[in-house]
Amino acid sequence: MSVTRHYEREFVRTFFTSPTAVDGEDDSAKMLRSAGQLRGLQAPDVWVPDNEDATAPNMRDEGVENIIDVVANQGAEFPGEIHPRVVWHRESPTTRYQGFQQMLEITDPENGAVEHIDGFVIPEVGDIDDWKKADEFFTIIENEHGLEEGSLSMSVIVESGEAELAMGDLRDEMGKPSNNLERMFLLVDGEVDYTKDMRAMTPTGELPPWPELRHNTSRGASAAGLIAVDGPYDDIRDVEGYRERMKDNRAKGMTGIWSLTPGQVVEANTAPLPPKTGSWLLEAGGQEVELEAQDGKQVYDGDDLSLEADGDGGYVLQAGGERLELDEDELTEELLDRTAYIPSMNDIVDSMEEFEAAKEAGKGAIAMTQAATLVIDGVEVDISKDRMWDEATYQAAQTPITLFQDVYEHRPDQHEELEEMYGADIVERAAAVGN
Amino acid sequence: MSVTRHYEREFVRTFFTSPTAVDGEDDSAKMLRSAGQLRGLQAPDVWVPDNEDATAPNMRDEGVENIIDVVANQGAEFPGEIHPRVVWHRESPTTRYQGFQQMLEITDPENGAVEHIDGFVIPEVGDIDDWKKADEFFTIIENEHGLEEGSLSMSVIVESGEAELAMGDLRDEMGKPSNNLERMFLLVDGEVDYTKDMRAMTPTGELPPWPELRHNTSRGASAAGLIAVDGPYDDIRDVEGYRERMKDNRAKGMTGIWSLTPGQVVEANTAPLPPKTGSWLLEAGGQEVELEAQDGKQVYDGDDLSLEADGDGGYVLQAGGERLELDEDELTEELLDRTAYIPSMNDIVDSMEEFEAAKEAGKGAIAMTQAATLVIDGVEVDISKDRMWDEATYQAAQTPITLFQDVYEHRPDQHEELEEMYGADIVERAAAVGN
Amino acid sequence: MSVTRHYEREFVRTFFTSPTAVDGEDDSAKMLRSAGQLRGLQAPDVWVPDNEDATAPNMRDEGVENIIDVVANQGAEFPGEIHPRVVWHRESPTTRYQGFQQMLEITDPENGAVEHIDGFVIPEVGDIDDWKKADEFFTIIENEHGLEEGSLSMSVIVESGEAELAMGDLRDEMGKPSNNLERMFLLVDGEVDYTKDMRAMTPTGELPPWPELRHNTSRGASAAGLIAVDGPYDDIRDVEGYRERMKDNRAKGMTGIWSLTPGQVVEANTAPLPPKTGSWLLEAGGQEVELEAQDGKQVYDGDDLSLEADGDGGYVLQAGGERLELDEDELTEELLDRTAYIPSMNDIVDSMEEFEAAKEAGKGAIAMTQAATLVIDGVEVDISKDRMWDEATYQAAQTPITLFQDVYEHRPDQHEELEEMYGADIVERAAAVGN
Repeated sequence: MSVTRHYEREFVRTFFTSPTAVDGEDDSAKMLRSAGQLRGLQAPDVWVPDNEDATAPNMRDEGVENIIDVVANQGAEFPGEIHPRVVWHRESPTTRYQGFQQMLEITDPENGAVEHIDGFVIPEVGDIDDWKKADEFFTIIENEHGLEEGSLSMSVIVESGEAELAMGDLRDEMGKPSNNLERMFLLVDGEVDYTKDMRAMTPTGELPPWPELRHNTSRGASAAGLIAVDGPYDDIRDVEGYRERMKDNRAKGMTGIWSLTPGQVVEANTAPLPPKTGSWLLEAGGQEVELEAQDGKQVYDGDDLSLEADGDGGYVLQAGGERLELDEDELTEELLDRTAYIPSMNDIVDSMEEFEAAKEAGKGAIAMTQAATLVIDGVEVDISKDRMWDEATYQAAQTPITLFQDVYEHRPDQHEELEEMYGADIVERAAAVGN
Repeated sequence: MSVTRHYEREFVRTFFTSPTAVDGEDDSAKMLRSAGQLRGLQAPDVWVPDNEDATAPNMRDEGVENIIDVVANQGAEFPGEIHPRVVWHRESPTTRYQGFQQMLEITDPENGAVEHIDGFVIPEVGDIDDWKKADEFFTIIENEHGLEEGSLSMSVIVESGEAELAMGDLRDEMGKPSNNLERMFLLVDGEVDYTKDMRAMTPTGELPPWPELRHNTSRGASAAGLIAVDGPYDDIRDVEGYRERMKDNRAKGMTGIWSLTPGQVVEANTAPLPPKTGSWLLEAGGQEVELEAQDGKQVYDGDDLSLEADGDGGYVLQAGGERLELDEDELTEELLDRTAYIPSMNDIVDSMEEFEAAKEAGKGAIAMTQAATLVIDGVEVDISKDRMWDEATYQAAQTPITLFQDVYEHRPDQHEELEEMYGADIVERAAAVGN
Repeated sequence: MSVTRHYEREFVRTFFTSPTAVDGEDDSAKMLRSAGQLRGLQAPDVWVPDNEDATAPNMRDEGVENIIDVVANQGAEFPGEIHPRVVWHRESPTTRYQGFQQMLEITDPENGAVEHIDGFVIPEVGDIDDWKKADEFFTIIENEHGLEEGSLSMSVIVESGEAELAMGDLRDEMGKPSNNLERMFLLVDGEVDYTKDMRAMTPTGELPPWPELRHNTSRGASAAGLIAVDGPYDDIRDVEGYRERMKDNRAKGMTGIWSLTPGQVVEANTAPLPPKTGSWLLEAGGQEVELEAQDGKQVYDGDDLSLEADGDGGYVLQAGGERLELDEDELTEELLDRTAYIPSMNDIVDSMEEFEAAKEAGKGAIAMTQAATLVIDGVEVDISKDRMWDEATYQAAQTPITLFQDVYEHRPDQHEELEEMYGADIVERAAAVGN
């Protein structure tokens, strides 16, 4: 069996939750209504009217009505997919039955919302048999309401050790005749409750980083043809921290992340796309520092590295208490080792087009060159980095482009902002390359 | 099935091994006798008379007699649980049969020790079928000696790749009618033999950190309702290193650790409890530095951060070669980003009580404020951190309190020391909050 | 069942791939022929004529002929094992059938190569059922060609999430009557395609470190009695980076690594062997710095630590902005905490011999002492480190020696270089100790 994705979107960047009913407001659905009006980069790939943790238990019946009302009225225009979260708990049949009832009501064709509902998010799942219980309710609902079997997607929140283990069983269980687990869509980590379930503690109360959980989620998604999404990043003010987390996630193959505010949605919709402008990194003081581009030169202005010419054609480079006396070639070599280049969208598209042309001409590999003038303590050094591009490089470089093309295809509401960001020409070429 | 813990203690902080028979002493049981007299913070939650690696092979028959003698005489008074370790090896039927005979003898009701024996520790287990072989011996022993089936706990030392994998199968296998694996209690990592089994090498011969093993052990314990315990920390002099390891373990949900000396027992019994006094952390030089409290102010006296007022109401903050010119609000913001607070036992209890009162009054979330005056290079800055407490925060904060209450309930011999540590009032409130 | 290794070599340090047919050369087998002539430290433990990614698709038929030609003529003299890589893909029956045909042809006894072929490498495997498909082809080939069933080893490249999960199932599946998976030999990570399969991205396009994958590969190998090998390290110029990666791998129990050039083969054949000379590490500036041996003293010449005598028998040690005033004993203590010793081959053999003698004399543990004179800012301090050696220490220390002995037994072509490296006396003692 090949890994087939049973849904339209290949990537999900953003998973945005909204409370379904807030007490004390004139209109308890106010937040839901305003979220349903988001467009462009502020609108998530997956919108989650959240009838579980974001909504007080005594407001959840009203939440179901609000979901129906808002989705029936605004769902047709909403640019992303819509997957409400209902209640569920691996250890409580009461909660599971409530979740079933919520889904049954929301999808009742007479209520007019179901045609805009893409699926549901099931929290607090346990082992794979618990996932099957939820799947069976989806099947019964589809049958009762005359929907096509398997047409509603199921996403789960992984917030227990059992669920983490279940992700290793999923591929084996999908496709068995007695379930419809092919409906699976997102594997979403829920680190707050996972931390509680694992009984983990940190001195300040902040969440542990859980790198192994995120790896296992990403691997589980890869093996079963699903999409991995990281949990909420609570410190909404900390944009830098949110970006760092997403970068770390992408290196694990986890492209999506939970967003709590439209501001986080913009960040998370943008972060996985290649940058408009390329930039150079220099290793200094044990870190990779991004150089500042000034008049086409790359300037380092930190204190962890110093360079001077000795007047005799030689150089003295000082770094981390080490002092190196180098001739020009050695200096170039040393700086080549210490630098890396982050390619822009334009660079990636250029290289892919060049490689495709070369391949058509019967060549299996080509060298791509990236040149720069570095400036350290006023001393200028020209460096030039070659990288071989073969089929494997080409395919690896394709991931961000495939993501871009997926966005471009499914999110026409973002075209204008993408063109503002990159220029219309690059957007057009990026949308076409490799096809 | 809900995850049910089949034992009294919910947490085990300490797993303390003693040799069962030492050659060349007048009384070969001397160490066993003295360990059996430990009380209070020096006494472990789980005491392990160790008839395996800590005892020479030719002394193990005598070790069995010593266990019987000491446990029969001192077991009734010992404040922790008693789980002797017997011999076992996944690759040796001889060793497995010896382990069976040792257990059979120790639990013989005529010997008078069994009523104080809570279970046994089985080292060097292999895959799950090997765990079942040990479990079957427990069942036979219980049957032979007229003990209730399942009454003896089984703990294992995970020191092979097979055993690490088996922890992923355990939840599925427990509860099958042909075994009594519900008797499982502790999953204990044994990094020395695990390193040998994995054929891992480090230049200096020190043990690799094995973060994935510890994650998998903690997850396996969580999924099967067991308790995860880390292996021995050999460098007994290195108290700071032992504490760092335990902090890292707790962030993985692994609360327990092996202790080799009564001194390590004290450290490990104390480390997972919230501190008596709260403290502030400041990010400086890439690290989190604990600030020194002086006259109610939080003083930073390192070199990695410098601050001065420019006389015009502005400030200059220098950090890591970076120089920031900030007005007062920007400075406060910057320092807020760089600080974190470690709450005291008192803080946690206060917040929980406040949240409980708010919940009773119908409020779902409240803001808790933590304020401090920071002093950097003599410049004073007031900061104030708000944190929202909702049901999830409340429950996450509960882990250390639940641990404390578990200790308080099962270890009356530690009450006096806990009261000395925190004051009787805090102990009383912490023991009551949330119940 | 005990973990039994079904192959001769216990360790594989090097996995060296060569293109099987290069277009545009007079002799398309030129690289294959020259690789087949490698000897000594330049020759890998496992040589992989690579009829997959290293060879252009339209050259692979010629590649099969070249493999047969070169292995038939040079195979008898080649000092390592020979395992060609054929094409395979979990999602393409066409590719799988091509792989079968390639293996069938290479092993045809009439072609004269099969007696020097130790097995095949199967890339792009999926879940365990996919591994069984490949295994079945091996069985059919052995049967067709009159070879002993199970005589051809099978190694796989792990480059998908499914394959990573399959390593957890392998031990359970080996030994089932309907397969011959006992033929499994190497588990090799393929991070380039794994990164693509996981859809992971890094800003600069460099590969993510994938620590969890490497752990799981090492564990899978350990549990099934196989050997774990890391993937290619692309930056051939970066010898230091290659060494760091191998050190990190060894701490995970992964001893082998892919080599792309004879230069990398030398590095990777040498790296896991103990050093000729011991050395001291000093913790300074958050790192472990290797001290320079000068006239038998260990000299630190960095800037992160400074030491001066105060003239009154006391000392001032400055480190990381901290200033410590210490008497002589405190200074010694502090430096002991900050130092570690990397034992030489000679040190390890000495300690093992000493411990063996002690054991024979009835002692279970002995203290080994390592002394040094440290020089910091011209101030000399004598330190002396004791380490207890018991059975467990002995066995853990044995891993590098077992590796050495495995090399010594199976690679007589490296004896001369090993003797040059260590001296004939040490080589002889290291080859004999513990046996």
